[in-house]
This record gives sequence, structure tokens and C-alpha cells, in this order.
Amino acid sequence: MSMGLYTPTDVQFGRGAEDKVGEVLKAYGATKVLIHFGTGSIKRSGLLDKIEKILQENDIEYVLLGGVVPNPRVSLVREGIELVVKRNIDFILAVGGGSVLDSAKAIGYGAYGGGDVWDFYCGKRKIEGTIPVGAILTLSATGSEMSDSSVITNDETEPIFKRGANSKFGRIKFALLNPELTYSVSKYQTASGSVDIIMHTVERYFHTGEAFDFTDKLSFTLLKTVIEYLPIAMKDSNNYDARANLMWAGTLSHNGLLAVGNPTRGDWACHQIEHELSAEYDVAHGAGLAAIWGSWARYVLGTDPSRFAKLGEGVFGESDPIRTIEKFEEFFKSVDMPVDIAGLGLNFDDEACRRAALGVTFQDTRKIGDFKVLATEDIYEIYKMASGN
Amino acid sequence: MSMGLYTPTDVQFGRGAEDKVGEVLKAYGATKVLIHFGTGSIKRSGLLDKIEKILQENDIEYVLLGGVVPNPRVSLVREGIELVVKRNIDFILAVGGGSVLDSAKAIGYGAYGGGDVWDFYCGKRKIEGTIPVGAILTLSATGSEMSDSSVITNDETEPIFKRGANSKFGRIKFALLNPELTYSVSKYQTASGSVDIIMHTVERYFHTGEAFDFTDKLSFTLLKTVIEYLPIAMKDSNNYDARANLMWAGTLSHNGLLAVGNPTRGDWACHQIEHELSAEYDVAHGAGLAAIWGSWARYVLGTDPSRFAKLGEGVFGESDPIRTIEKFEEFFKSVDMPVDIAGLGLNFDDEACRRAALGVTFQDTRKIGDFKVLATEDIYEIYKMASGN
Repeated sequence: MSMGLYTPTDVQFGRGAEDKVGEVLKAYGATKVLIHFGTGSIKRSGLLDKIEKILQENDIEYVLLGGVVPNPRVSLVREGIELVVKRNIDFILAVGGGSVLDSAKAIGYGAYGGGDVWDFYCGKRKIEGTIPVGAILTLSATGSEMSDSSVITNDETEPIFKRGANSKFGRIKFALLNPELTYSVSKYQTASGSVDIIMHTVERYFHTGEAFDFTDKLSFTLLKTVIEYLPIAMKDSNNYDARANLMWAGTLSHNGLLAVGNPTRGDWACHQIEHELSAEYDVAHGAGLAAIWGSWARYVLGTDPSRFAKLGEGVFGESDPIRTIEKFEEFFKSVDMPVDIAGLGLNFDDEACRRAALGVTFQDTRKIGDFKVLATEDIYEIYKMASGN
Repeated sequence: MSMGLYTPTDVQFGRGAEDKVGEVLKAYGATKVLIHFGTGSIKRSGLLDKIEKILQENDIEYVLLGGVVPNPRVSLVREGIELVVKRNIDFILAVGGGSVLDSAKAIGYGAYGGGDVWDFYCGKRKIEGTIPVGAILTLSATGSEMSDSSVITNDETEPIFKRGANSKFGRIKFALLNPELTYSVSKYQTASGSVDIIMHTVERYFHTGEAFDFTDKLSFTLLKTVIEYLPIAMKDSNNYDARANLMWAGTLSHNGLLAVGNPTRGDWACHQIEHELSAEYDVAHGAGLAAIWGSWARYVLGTDPSRFAKLGEGVFGESDPIRTIEKFEEFFKSVDMPVDIAGLGLNFDDEACRRAALGVTFQDTRKIGDFKVLATEDIYEIYKMASGN
């Protein structure tokens, strides 16, 4: 058996998608909704007012909970869970980007399952259900709107932990995707989000065993689309076509489509290596991935250079393995993304490399990766390469 | 708003996928199952024995109903509905190709909704629910395993009617896709099924209004994949890669992915024009589409030649609109598919063209198409072109 696909999320796509929010909330039986959001941009843009008005018109009660920050914190999740339980909330509406969505998913798991929600993220307990979640997306990046994953940062511990949980209950009920709602996303966040999109596909592309050609080709099509439209969106932030192509690429990159027929979920080492950076230093996740990827790629290249060659041929029309890595790095630079840790503004010395590598392997108690399995020493080497040590 | 996506079907893909049938039936709460199948190939291959054994091992009761033929008949659907109601069956397992699946969906609608099942297909009643359906697929073609549609032929009327019904309740619970189960499909059926796959994408590609570039590019990738792997599967019927690429292309071609972001569901005139042929003369649906498409394309070309140019460039690397049509026809010929009605073995005279055109428009009471809207006279002209009259 190879990878299958399960994507039950009802996706509405295009201009005005958010206008459907009353209708879909009713269709999914929502009567009392938690509207969960970030640090206020949806207030400034008028989107929150619009949503509140639609809910009022549809006689749907709601409670507001804002304040989600990038690398969303378990402390706010706990607050959300308390609110949902105390106020008998039966639906969570996430309005924002991947951080808001991941926070909403965590609230859903915790409110349904009781106990300490962090247990689901550190692997102590299995997610058994959720309060239903829906989303209005305002940022193209994490693909959380159709994925089974959420990533939460535990800000109550020292050192800070960032952990992901995958569950079929993480597939939300509906996602309303209006590319116009991403017009106000800054150049930097657009680029960082797009690197995340690229990496969700690249992580799946690198795996052990036999590849499935159709999935490879769909992956190349997605990567070429992001590479074509990201510069347009950065130059002309209100370009509907560019925003629409990036938005849908973000969703398809992480809903599982691009693993179908493959033997495994993919490599995912870069994500693990990056999580230490964004947990500890709060860098933008996509920028962190860009800073790491080239070093990871050079370190694992020898495992199967032909896999890099196929990627380069499919995306850039050049089949030299080293050139494949360079072409990605050239693209990252062209959209003002870093290609090393210094580019993130961090001074990462040898001790920092050592500490981060041990963080990734949970103090040398696990290995990561699938295309190439990596132990603490390997990860330390990759951090050293990425930091120029 | 443009087209969204709703694909809740749980897909298991790869060698041995059918071994999961006991597990997934239990997960979806099945206790008494109707196993629905065709004219016996699954008996000869041993697949039915295997499924029965798995159900017995899982203590799931079942009842058998075979006999589905291509262009599945409402008479057998009625028999299935009676059986489901009388025996308190709570799950329908379709084992076969699109005809078996479409028949199973119709049984599900009828057993749930009561009354005359044909009402759902001739538009008299809306589908309000279904007995849950799952499938083990043995033929790559219709994409019914993940689509919202089913097509049934009414053999109780004169003339015979073939009608489709689309409903969100047509999205089945699970689909088990093992490419090995399609090894025994004949060259002709493999080619005919692949034309159907191609046409599900091409029908969606031709629409009014602005196109969504990412969806266009994914469509080209799918079409190129089918064009690459069909000849391999015809030459080497047990080639896993070829069968796997075709199987997944069949599913993605019709699950709605390749309409996302477009203003409409697509044109679908060719399907309507073909349905008259397969209803009346019982030809293979894909072969019928191949016989019609070139004539439809030449007739509507003037509406927007640039759309044909983009298709040709994306699939064949040639952007001349006429060459695009010719290239598809050359491909059809290369896989022994017809490019006119004579190639179906039918002698279609002027009267036949007239009668069929009136059949398509329900005796001049509707028009069809979206890229170009067609009335009875237009359809008559297309039949004339396709039949060489």
C-alpha cells in the first residue's frame, strides 16, 4: 500500500467566498461560534465587522477570541478551551492564516478531549475528536486549511518547544478562500509563506522507495506555479491572478495530494530542523526553511542524486543535481529570502548548533527524516553548514 | 465566486488496497452489505471470493447482486433497491468500474429516498440522501469513485434514455484503488476508459469567462500523463506504473479538482452528444467521445481559438489551434480509438443525426454547452460532421 488521500474539507474559492460564512456555518449546525483571530489586522481591514454582521443576520451567536501570534502559543489555546467549554460553544471559526488555524484546531482537540491539551502535541495522548472548525483564510502559506496537521509552541516551558500533531480530526469542515483577502499581506510574509508552500511539496517529494510519476509531475507543476506567481504578487500586491494561484498552491501543497502513490509521507527533516529556529528565535517559518534547505540538500544529496536531477529537470529544465539546489537558492534570493542562518539575522555559534541539534532529536532520543534518516550528529553538521561555522 | 472543491471520499491507493475492505467497512459502521458487481469477471479473477472471505472474517453480513452491464440499466437498479430495503442493508459495496459504481449510487439514492428512482435522473426530484456506498475499483475510466455524478440508462422506455444526476450525496465514503486489479482490462477498454479520462479534463477546460492558470496547468499535466502511459498499458497490460498513473488520473480527472477557480463546471456538450450514441447503440462511452470530439472542436473553435492554442501548447508544445485538434485525433488513432461515427461501426444517416440531435435537447426543450451554447441545429451539424454526411 502506498499513500492515499482523505480531504473532506468543503472548499469555497474565489471573490466573495467569505460571504458564504453564514450559510456554511448553518449547514454544519453551528449555533454558538468562537471567532478566533490574530493581532488585529482583520479588525483594521473591516473583515471582522463583516463576519459579525453576517452571523448576526443569520441569528448565530458568537464569542470573540483574538491574539494569536505567529508560532501560536499553547497559553492562548488554553484560554480558548476554557471559553469554549464555559460558554457551550459548538463551532470554532478561524479567521486568519495558518497560526490562527492551528490554534483553532488545538482548541477544538482540547475542548473535545479534556485534560491537558499539550498531551496531544508531545505524543502522550491520541486525538480522539474535535469541536468542529471552519476557516476564512487571509494568508497563503501553511496549508492548514485542508491539512491534517497543526503546530503549537509551548511558551510555558524552558526551553520553548514547538510541536506538531497530525490527525484526521484536523481536517476542518470548511475553508472559505478569497484571494483578495491576501492583498494586504506584506512582501516579506508573502515570500516566506510561499517558501513554506514550496517546502511542503519538496518535503513530500523526497522519500524512500519508488516514486509515483504522476504525483512527481503534479508537484513540479505546483512548484513552477509558485515560482512564476510569487514575484508577480510581490511586485503587484493586488494582482488577483497571482494571489489566487499562490492561495490554491498553498492548499494543494499540504492536503496530501502530492504524496499519493508514494511509499511514505515524505522526508520532513527540514521542517523539524527549522522548528527549533522558530521556536527559540521566533523567525518566520518559511524564511527559516529557506535558510536551512540548501544545507540539508547538500548534506543528503549523495543518498540519491537522481532524485535531485528529476526535480531540477521538472521545475527548472536543468537536470544537474547541484544546479537543482543552486536554482532553488537563486530563487529564494530573488524574492529576498535567506539561504543561510545569518540571513535570518541570527549569530548561530557552535554551541547554538549543538543545542539546536539536540532539541530536534529530543535530546538524542529520536532520529528524523525519510529520504535520509538523520541523527543528532547529522543535524549538527547541517546547522553548521547553514550557519557558516 | 468560482468553483470550489468537496471530495470527502477516503481513498486508499496501491497494491493490496482491497485488503482493507473489512477494516473500512467497519470504520463506516457497515453491518449488512450489498456487494454489487458486473457480469462475472470478479468471479473469474477470484476477487469476489477474496472479498467474501474478508467480510466473513470480519463478521459482516452480505448479499450479492451482480449483473451490471456497461451503460447500467435502471431495471437492475430497481432490483437492488428492493433488495436493500427488504434485507435491511446498511452499506453498498461496489466492486467494478464506473457502471457498477453508478448503479450502486442509484440504488443508494432510491433506497434512501423511496418512490421512483428515475425521478432523480430525469430531474423530477432532488436527491436528499443515500445509503452509504464504498468501492473497490477494477477499471480506470469514469472517475465515479470520487465524483458527485452517476449516469443511468432507462431501458424501460422507447426510445432508451441515458441521464446523469449530480449530487453531493454521490461522493462515496471510501474508494480502494489497487492498480493491479486493472491488469486484466482489455486494450480496447483501457483505451476507451482513457479517452473518458481525457475528456473529463477537456470538458472542464472549456468554459466561459476567465480561466484559472494553475488549474489549466494541472489539467495539462494530467493529460500528458494519460498520453504517456496509455500506450505503455496497452503494450504491457501488467505494467504497474502505467496502470497506477492511469488509475489516479481517472480519479483526479473527475473529482472536481480540475475545475477549481474556474467560473463554471465546464462545457460538457460532448458528453451529452455522446450519451445519445451509447444509449441508443450501446457503444463504449470513451470510444463515443473520441468519435465526436474533433467535430465538436472544429464547430466551436471560432468561439475562442486562443483557448485551443493554450491547450495545444500545454499538452503537445504546439500552439496552433487546428493542430491542437489534430494532435488529439492523431493520439486517438494511435490507440485504436475512432475519430468519427463510422469508426464506431455505425452507419449514421441524416435522419439518425436529426433524431439524435433532438434526443440531446430533449426534443428541442433545452440547450447544452458552456464554452459555446448549442441548440438542436448546432448539434445536428456536429453529428453530420462526425458521421461524414
